[in-house]
Amino acid sequence: MRSWSQKIVDNKSFQNTIIILILINAVLIGLETYPNVYQQYGDLLQVLDLVILLIFTIEIALKLIASHPTRDFFKDGWNVFDFLIVAFSYIFVGSTYVTVLRILRVLRLFRTISVIPSLRKLVNALLMTLPSLGTIMLLLGIVFYIFSVIGTVLYGSVSPEFFGTIQHTALTLFQMITLESWASGVMRPVMEEAPYSWIYFVSFILAGSFVVLNLFVGVIVNNFEKVESMESDDEDDLKEEISSLRQEIQELKDLVKK
Amino acid sequence: MRSWSQKIVDNKSFQNTIIILILINAVLIGLETYPNVYQQYGDLLQVLDLVILLIFTIEIALKLIASHPTRDFFKDGWNVFDFLIVAFSYIFVGSTYVTVLRILRVLRLFRTISVIPSLRKLVNALLMTLPSLGTIMLLLGIVFYIFSVIGTVLYGSVSPEFFGTIQHTALTLFQMITLESWASGVMRPVMEEAPYSWIYFVSFILAGSFVVLNLFVGVIVNNFEKVESMESDDEDDLKEEISSLRQEIQELKDLVKK
Amino acid sequence: MRSWSQKIVDNKSFQNTIIILILINAVLIGLETYPNVYQQYGDLLQVLDLVILLIFTIEIALKLIASHPTRDFFKDGWNVFDFLIVAFSYIFVGSTYVTVLRILRVLRLFRTISVIPSLRKLVNALLMTLPSLGTIMLLLGIVFYIFSVIGTVLYGSVSPEFFGTIQHTALTLFQMITLESWASGVMRPVMEEAPYSWIYFVSFILAGSFVVLNLFVGVIVNNFEKVESMESDDEDDLKEEISSLRQEIQELKDLVKK
Amino acid sequence: MRSWSQKIVDNKSFQNTIIILILINAVLIGLETYPNVYQQYGDLLQVLDLVILLIFTIEIALKLIASHPTRDFFKDGWNVFDFLIVAFSYIFVGSTYVTVLRILRVLRLFRTISVIPSLRKLVNALLMTLPSLGTIMLLLGIVFYIFSVIGTVLYGSVSPEFFGTIQHTALTLFQMITLESWASGVMRPVMEEAPYSWIYFVSFILAGSFVVLNLFVGVIVNNFEKVESMESDDEDDLKEEISSLRQEIQELKDLVKK
Repeated sequence: MRSWSQKIVDNKSFQNTIIILILINAVLIGLETYPNVYQQYGDLLQVLDLVILLIFTIEIALKLIASHPTRDFFKDGWNVFDFLIVAFSYIFVGSTYVTVLRILRVLRLFRTISVIPSLRKLVNALLMTLPSLGTIMLLLGIVFYIFSVIGTVLYGSVSPEFFGTIQHTALTLFQMITLESWASGVMRPVMEEAPYSWIYFVSFILAGSFVVLNLFVGVIVNNFEKVESMESDDEDDLKEEISSLRQEIQELKDLVKK
Repeated sequence: MRSWSQKIVDNKSFQNTIIILILINAVLIGLETYPNVYQQYGDLLQVLDLVILLIFTIEIALKLIASHPTRDFFKDGWNVFDFLIVAFSYIFVGSTYVTVLRILRVLRLFRTISVIPSLRKLVNALLMTLPSLGTIMLLLGIVFYIFSVIGTVLYGSVSPEFFGTIQHTALTLFQMITLESWASGVMRPVMEEAPYSWIYFVSFILAGSFVVLNLFVGVIVNNFEKVESMESDDEDDLKEEISSLRQEIQELKDLVKK
Repeated sequence: MRSWSQKIVDNKSFQNTIIILILINAVLIGLETYPNVYQQYGDLLQVLDLVILLIFTIEIALKLIASHPTRDFFKDGWNVFDFLIVAFSYIFVGSTYVTVLRILRVLRLFRTISVIPSLRKLVNALLMTLPSLGTIMLLLGIVFYIFSVIGTVLYGSVSPEFFGTIQHTALTLFQMITLESWASGVMRPVMEEAPYSWIYFVSFILAGSFVVLNLFVGVIVNNFEKVESMESDDEDDLKEEISSLRQEIQELKDLVKK
Repeated sequence: MRSWSQKIVDNKSFQNTIIILILINAVLIGLETYPNVYQQYGDLLQVLDLVILLIFTIEIALKLIASHPTRDFFKDGWNVFDFLIVAFSYIFVGSTYVTVLRILRVLRLFRTISVIPSLRKLVNALLMTLPSLGTIMLLLGIVFYIFSVIGTVLYGSVSPEFFGTIQHTALTLFQMITLESWASGVMRPVMEEAPYSWIYFVSFILAGSFVVLNLFVGVIVNNFEKVESMESDDEDDLKEEISSLRQEIQELKDLVKK
């Protein structure tokens, strides 16, 4: 039974069928968003969706059976993701939370990434760069928190929409760090009542963009070091060659001594 | 006949004449956009345009004759581009689609790139960096599609202008990824009706800019690897030198043994 | 006494207690910004704040005693920062400058950086990149000053809000260098009265972003050189290996000569 | 006479005096922009300005005398700049073009760069990176021209403010390439009348930012190659060492043969 399902799971055409099904699923989910399409073909779309869900269930069941021991299946985060997406689809089936169901269906589109190997590898690589940026992200978080508290204390009453509570201020700061309308939309209206508020805004822009710049430089230098380390392997080869040279000269010496 | 046209085509002053003609053409097309110039000299401009089109036709005809076999001409994408631009100019001549004609005439300006060798090389080099970014662009496409569907499902009724259909949402997301008015123009109005919509917007900005950042880093590291690979050639030279050293020591050994 | 306090200060659990206290302090300061929380638990929060301030005072006193000679304590900028934050909290206690007190309390959050070693190291590293950017920052300052004066002279009367005084213009230029609303908000309204003002705006954007770009490139190349210098060490190793090889050959020569 | 003026010009304290004078001049020009300062001390400021202008004239005269042959003075662009700034100040003295005079006086602030050696070197270095970016800047120019013509032809009547003439469109495109209000301010209003105009806008943003990105990468890689070339020198050293090794082995061979 297990070897049989392993054969199926490893089969190239089985994998391709799943990829094509996910793409079809993506198109169907896209079509559903057009009201006139939904009205005319809504029932057909729902049936197709259910069929695809069933096939996905079978696929995951096969993968579960194929992996030995079974918990190996859950060691890969992507498998866990696939499993949860399908499992939740059943939990909420027939429920009245239509929006939850729709979003679950849309999240299924992320399976496009989990199912195409090159994308899976790329996303894994991208996610692996995150931990090395941990400390600088922590710093960014602290800067955000401090400026959120200061902003709320100072301008909470001046501009409640942007600085009403810490959450509001944090969102405003996130907007400001993307430099979107930070002056025209946020700073200038506040400055009309608190003329010295520019100190707060300019220092946040300077501090924030300085940290983000270094985050960015960190990512570049990181990638860069990987290229360099391959270079270093070349250098190690050189060193080995030279040490083998040295050995040969040693042998030569022994020869001459004799 | 072929060798005669080859001689002309390869002639330096022939190429320069064509470059100058294209520049004149560019100026004429620019002048045409001024209504008062067009009213006074419209007829003259159209005659000049026709003359230039004729010369371009002769140029391409000569190039077609000069290349052997003829289909070699179409192997270079720039030649195909030149051919199509001129061919379409004839197809739409005298048609009532005035705008199409005008745009065709403007597209002829792209011949400036195809005709100046250094620009041609630069654009070829730029375009050649695109395939290596294929996977990350595919990932960007998937992220766009997923967020387009989610956005349309969730906020299609709240803000039809920005999230009415998948196409509208995709355009809005493109605007957002350039960080243009993403908060002041798009997020804040939506948040008034759907207070938790910031989760959608912030996660798109984070995901989108993270992928774009990596796209960007990819381009830098790519260029970087090219410089490095030249370095590696240096290293290979070193290795060769060392291995030739080893050979000489081997010969020395043989000598001593004797 | 000194050795006793040194033991405490160097104790791992003492340091962790301080870190936890600062985090608790951060949460308390955050909670205080919510009016309803403040009304209900305001007194409790103030008592807790005082307790934490007392513990911080004891911490700094211990550190002062532990360091020998005492002025060594003030050689580290972070210690000076910690000392001033706590000292000022006492100076303004009971004063009527409530806002000053609140901001002092918020600034205490920066102690999160001074107290977590990895963050301290990171911020020190970031600050150390600043001096190497000194000249380019001076250049940026000069460009800012010149454009501020020109802007105030030319458009001070056209748009007093943006160009009224040199300070106003400098702030506007800072907004423009972040590219925020530089055209829609600043340039286009001015252009309605001074049609040729685009020369001023475009040349500032070009000059400013060119200098900032080079500032940015400077940071990257700086980091880059550090990686390279580690590479160079590798190369130096190679050189040493080769020179030791040479020595061995020399010895061999001597042997043969004999 | 010449050697006497050379001595003065090369004198450290002469140079410092000029630097200080330029800084004083900068402050004076800044003060002049405040109406109330100008009303009270306007006459004093003008006298001081004249005095400084006289000293600058003497400075340049000395430099002219010191350089031999005289035209050597004009070989350095900064000297020409200094000369013209001072010369023009005389030409327009007493003229009614008050604004021209004021701007000339402000431009004198650029002498801060020409007079501080480290800044002069930095700006020279920055300017020297420009020629290597020539081709990509030419490409950018062509892309701008083509899109300007297309934009004027297609949307000149829809939105005369942004696309009225080629100059207007070029300015709008410059605004768009900085991503400032390109969607909310420019594209969306045009789209209301020309729904398919997004093709034009999105393709310009993509093409423009792609070229600018490569311009940017070009600057980084350029700087990078300089660092690398220093590395290459290291490698050349290695090669030389190895070839000297080879020579020694050759000598050894000869010895053994004997």
